[in-house]
Amino acid sequence: MPGTGRRPGNPGTKEAILVAAREAFAERGYDQSSVREIASAAGVDPALVHHYFGTKDRLFLAVLEAPVDPAEMLPQIVEGPVGELPERLVGTFLSIWDDPVSGGAAVALLRSAFQREPAARLLRDFLTTQLMPAALSRLDMGAAEVRLRFELVAGQLVGVAVMRYVLRLEPLASAPPPVVVAALAPTVRRYLFEPLN
Amino acid sequence: MPGTGRRPGNPGTKEAILVAAREAFAERGYDQSSVREIASAAGVDPALVHHYFGTKDRLFLAVLEAPVDPAEMLPQIVEGPVGELPERLVGTFLSIWDDPVSGGAAVALLRSAFQREPAARLLRDFLTTQLMPAALSRLDMGAAEVRLRFELVAGQLVGVAVMRYVLRLEPLASAPPPVVVAALAPTVRRYLFEPLN
Repeated sequence: MPGTGRRPGNPGTKEAILVAAREAFAERGYDQSSVREIASAAGVDPALVHHYFGTKDRLFLAVLEAPVDPAEMLPQIVEGPVGELPERLVGTFLSIWDDPVSGGAAVALLRSAFQREPAARLLRDFLTTQLMPAALSRLDMGAAEVRLRFELVAGQLVGVAVMRYVLRLEPLASAPPPVVVAALAPTVRRYLFEPLN
Repeated sequence: MPGTGRRPGNPGTKEAILVAAREAFAERGYDQSSVREIASAAGVDPALVHHYFGTKDRLFLAVLEAPVDPAEMLPQIVEGPVGELPERLVGTFLSIWDDPVSGGAAVALLRSAFQREPAARLLRDFLTTQLMPAALSRLDMGAAEVRLRFELVAGQLVGVAVMRYVLRLEPLASAPPPVVVAALAPTVRRYLFEPLN
């Protein structure tokens, strides 16, 4: 609309922002990248970044082509009886990977993280800035221990995803979700809440 | 030596065998590939394949550029008190991945399995034909259950390898091996020997 003062951007603007953001996040990491710098590198006004992508979190998820938005997914895991948090976590994880669309995106994300270091850094940052703080907000222990426990849980889930969705080993690849939840939830429970030595 | 009757092969022979073997294992899998067919595809006598590589198992490991030979590694895991098998398994796994040479090869193998389906098939076959039978020779249960338990253990180990050696998330990446063994061994014990539901 003429006269509103908003710069509309041209068709390549959104893509230029994504390219600049991908470079910034991969080189400097999530924490050290600002929307202002990304906008500057893309040659656009920071307001346009917010217009297209909302928050820096959401821009990061767009760069990652993340299969889901943790801000929407995490509450349903964290809310509810804490004793059943492992079951909710594993069940939600499987439902994301079992879905053709979000599961395909998740496999693609994992593949790219294996191919080159910048993508690995993106996945590291995704785990530690987008997932860890919220997922472990209920754990009452030191920061180093929280991180270790988070990494053990993430390793268990990533590993089962490799077997089930990347290598597709049977019978795990076709096991009904409740079977996998029953197998993994006690592991997750121990990694989160019980002594590790 | 002239007169022995053994065809010496030319400098490219070994490489030609590897190329033919890689194609055969990736296309038809380990079980459906024979040394005779691989030799034929490489245009050499089968005796030359045995001369260069020994058994079909060892040819397969050469194609994979496998970091270790399971035939040498598995006895030290399987032998000894069965109650401490999980500790020996996790400890041996970490010692392979912590070593710069074999660990580098292991990361390369995992990376290639993520990049394309033929390599994923090679890794699947490696797990199911080279590792599973020996590792689980002590489990007294049905074949499907043995496979599921093996895949759960493999998933746990691959997952912790992704966190520790590919993504290198701290503090897990620098945790002393005994800390990681203590964290993972009870999980492996449950996946191998205890009820899963």
